Amino acid sequence: MKAVKAEIIAVGTELLLGQITNTNARYLSQQLSYLGIDVYYQTVVGDNLNRLKQAIELASSRADVIVFSGGIGPTQDDLTKDALGEVLGRSLHIHAESMQAVEKFFEGRDKPMTENNRRQAIILENSDPLPNEAGLAVGVAISQDEKHYIVLPGPPKELQPMFENQAIPWLLEHVLTDEYPIYSKMLKFAGIGESALEDALLDLISAQTDPTIAPYAKEGEVTIRLTTKAPDEKEAMSKLKAMEAQIRERLPDYMYADQNITIEHQIIQMMTGMKLTLAAAESCTGGLVMQNLTTIPGSALVFMGGVVSYSNEMKEQILNVPHELLEGENAPGAVSEEVAEVMADQARLLLDTDFAVSVTGVAGPGSSERKPVGLVYIAIAERDRQTEVFKLNLKGNREAIRIRSAKSLMYRLWLRLKQRENEQLAAQS
Amino acid sequence: MKAVKAEIIAVGTELLLGQITNTNARYLSQQLSYLGIDVYYQTVVGDNLNRLKQAIELASSRADVIVFSGGIGPTQDDLTKDALGEVLGRSLHIHAESMQAVEKFFEGRDKPMTENNRRQAIILENSDPLPNEAGLAVGVAISQDEKHYIVLPGPPKELQPMFENQAIPWLLEHVLTDEYPIYSKMLKFAGIGESALEDALLDLISAQTDPTIAPYAKEGEVTIRLTTKAPDEKEAMSKLKAMEAQIRERLPDYMYADQNITIEHQIIQMMTGMKLTLAAAESCTGGLVMQNLTTIPGSALVFMGGVVSYSNEMKEQILNVPHELLEGENAPGAVSEEVAEVMADQARLLLDTDFAVSVTGVAGPGSSERKPVGLVYIAIAERDRQTEVFKLNLKGNREAIRIRSAKSLMYRLWLRLKQRENEQLAAQS
Repeated sequence: MKAVKAEIIAVGTELLLGQITNTNARYLSQQLSYLGIDVYYQTVVGDNLNRLKQAIELASSRADVIVFSGGIGPTQDDLTKDALGEVLGRSLHIHAESMQAVEKFFEGRDKPMTENNRRQAIILENSDPLPNEAGLAVGVAISQDEKHYIVLPGPPKELQPMFENQAIPWLLEHVLTDEYPIYSKMLKFAGIGESALEDALLDLISAQTDPTIAPYAKEGEVTIRLTTKAPDEKEAMSKLKAMEAQIRERLPDYMYADQNITIEHQIIQMMTGMKLTLAAAESCTGGLVMQNLTTIPGSALVFMGGVVSYSNEMKEQILNVPHELLEGENAPGAVSEEVAEVMADQARLLLDTDFAVSVTGVAGPGSSERKPVGLVYIAIAERDRQTEVFKLNLKGNREAIRIRSAKSLMYRLWLRLKQRENEQLAAQS
Repeated sequence: MKAVKAEIIAVGTELLLGQITNTNARYLSQQLSYLGIDVYYQTVVGDNLNRLKQAIELASSRADVIVFSGGIGPTQDDLTKDALGEVLGRSLHIHAESMQAVEKFFEGRDKPMTENNRRQAIILENSDPLPNEAGLAVGVAISQDEKHYIVLPGPPKELQPMFENQAIPWLLEHVLTDEYPIYSKMLKFAGIGESALEDALLDLISAQTDPTIAPYAKEGEVTIRLTTKAPDEKEAMSKLKAMEAQIRERLPDYMYADQNITIEHQIIQMMTGMKLTLAAAESCTGGLVMQNLTTIPGSALVFMGGVVSYSNEMKEQILNVPHELLEGENAPGAVSEEVAEVMADQARLLLDTDFAVSVTGVAGPGSSERKPVGLVYIAIAERDRQTEVFKLNLKGNREAIRIRSAKSLMYRLWLRLKQRENEQLAAQS
C-alpha cells in the first residue's frame, strides 16, 4: 500500500480574523487518519482569489488529496470553486439537481431567492457533485493529474455528513482502491480520568498495531476509538470485539457504552429498557443534569421532571427539606449529606418515580456557608432501597465543578442501574 | 501606515492527526487583528524538520511577521527552534535564566530532571528570550532581513500570557513602531439574526473605515466588534462610543450590552440592580434556561429556582396546571398558550418571586400532541402585571429548537426589564 498524503485547505477570512476556530481541520484530519491517509499540512487562506489559487498550486505540488472546507456559499466572497476551476483549467456550470434543491428551499419562504444563490449549485466541468444533506451548497470531487480534490462546505453540520456519506465512498472508489477499508468502534468511559485510563491500558496502547487504540477526554467522559483495516466487516468486527473485550475486562466499572453516546444517553436507554422513571433535584448544577438528560430524544419516557432549588426557601417549600437542616447554629446546611439525601428522597416522592438524583454543593466563586469551593454532595434515591450519598471534592472553576458534579452523579446512577441489570439477570437464570 | 502581513505556523503532528483543535491559530489571529496586523495564512505542519524548514521559508517569502506555536517542549520531536535556527543561519544556546527556572522547577519534585529538559531553555543566537509565566519552555523573538519571528509554546495557558505580556510589547517596539495602538469594544444583540442585523447596518458596515465593524453570530446571540486605532484611550473611546451610539439608535430593542456577556448575564445584572427575583418553569428546554442563568456567578441573588415539568403529571402536581387544559378532546394540550401562562404564573407564586418565565413546546423529533415540531410557547409572569405569552415557530433540530426557545425567552424578559428600567427612570424625573 503506497502512502497517500493529504492537505487540508480551509477557506475564509473569518478564520484569519480569529472570529471562528478551525474545527473542520481537526475533524477532517481525524477522518483522514482513520482512512489511513497522512495529513502533512493544514492551510488557512482568506477569501482572496489569488492567494487561494496559490494555496491550491502549492498543495497540488506536495499532496495527493486536497480537501477544502468553506468558500462555497452564495456570496461573491465564496471563491473556492472559482479558484479550483482556474487552477485546473475547468469551466464552472450549474448542477441541475442542486439548483432544484436551492429553488425548492426558497419556494416556501417569504423572501424570493436572490440571484447569488445560484452560485451554491455550481460544480466544475466533469466533476462529481457531492450532495449537501444539511444545506444548499453542493460539494465537488474531482481527479486530475493523479491529484484528487474534494470541496466541502464550511459549516460543520454540512461538512461532516457530506464527508462521511459522500466523500469517504468517493475516496474509497477513486483513491484508496488498493487498500482494505477502515473500520472503527468507539468505547465510552466515565468515572475515570484520561491518564488513569491510559495507565490501565498502557501495555495495550504501547503494543498497539492492529487495532489501534486512541483515547480522548472531554467534559468528564473519556472516549477510546479502536480502528482496524480488514477485507470485510466480519473480520474487522472480530478484531475490534476481541480488543474491546480485553479493555472491558480491565475496566468493567468504567466502560459504559460500546458506541459514541453520552452517559446520560446510556442511562436513558437502560431505564427505557427496564421501564424505570427518574426525577432530579439540583442545587449548584442549576439545571445542568436535567438539561443533559433532556437533550436525548425519547428522554420523556424516563425523565419525569425535577426541581432546581437554588434558594433555601425553595428547598424547604417544594422539597420539604426541614428548616433545621438548612439554618441554625448546628445545622449541617444546604451543602451537606443530609440535605442531598432529603432532596433526592423528596424529588422521588414528589414525582412518584423509581429513581431520583440530587446534587448540592459549592460551585464558587465564593461560598456562603464557609464550606470550600468544590465540596459537592450527590445522592441517588431508589424506590424501596436505601438512598446513597457521595461526597466529592472537585477542583476547577465554577463551570468545571458544575460539569464534573453532573457527570459524577450520572456515573453513580449508571453503576446502580448496571447492578440492577445484573441482579435481574441473576434472578432470571 | 504600511500594512503588516503575518503568518501563523502551528507545529505538531497531534494537530495533523486531529487529536487536538488548533485554538492557538484563532487566538493569535484575533490578537494580531487587534494590533492591526493582517493574517494572510495559517499553516499547520508536523514535527518534521524538513517540512518545518520549508514552511518557514515559504512564510518568510510572503509575510512580515511569522508567529509559531508549539514544538518547543523537551522532547526530540520539538523542533521549532532547531528549524528556525537552520533557516536563519543562527546557532542555538542555553539561556541561563530560563535554565535556572527549569532547574528550580525540578528541585522540589520527586523525579530528577532529565537531560532533555535543557532543550526548553534554548534560544537562538542574538534573539530576545520571551519568559514563560506558566511553563518551562522559553519563547524567542528575533528579527532578520526585515522579517520578524516569534516562537511561542503550544499549550494555550502558556502561549496566551506569553503573547500578551511579552510578544505584544516586543511587536510594538520592533514592528509597529509607527502605528497607534488598537482599541476595541464589543456590542451584543439578541432577538435579531445576523443577516437582519447586517441589513440594518449595511451602509455603516460598507462605509466602515474607522472604527471597523465586524458582526459574528453564535447560538442565538449576535456580537459586533468595533475596532479603532488612536494615539490614546480617550480619543479611541470617543470614536468607539460615537459609532456605538449610531448602532444603538438603529437597533435600540436588540442591543442588550456594550460588553461581551450573554443575555442571561445581562439579565442577572439588571435584576440584581433592581433587586428583583426570578423563577422558571421549563418543559421542552428541560433545564437549559435555568442552566444558562445559573452559569453566571452571583445568580443566586436573583434566581430562586424552578421546575422542569417534563411530564403532564408534574405540570399538574407541582405547577397546578388544570387537568382539563392538558388532557381531553378539546383540551389545548401541554403545548399551548394557556399552559405556558399557567406555568409562568404558578412558578412565580410557588417561589414568591417578582418574575417567572416558562417555556413549553415541541423540540422534536416527533410530537405527541399532533403539533408541529418547532411550535413553542414562552411566557413571562410579573407580580401585579398581566402575564405575556409569545408563540414561536422555530426551525432546526431538537438542540437548535431548545437553544432558540431559551434565548427567545431571555430576549423577551430583557425587553420587559428594560421597559421597567425606563419607567422607573421616567417616574424619578
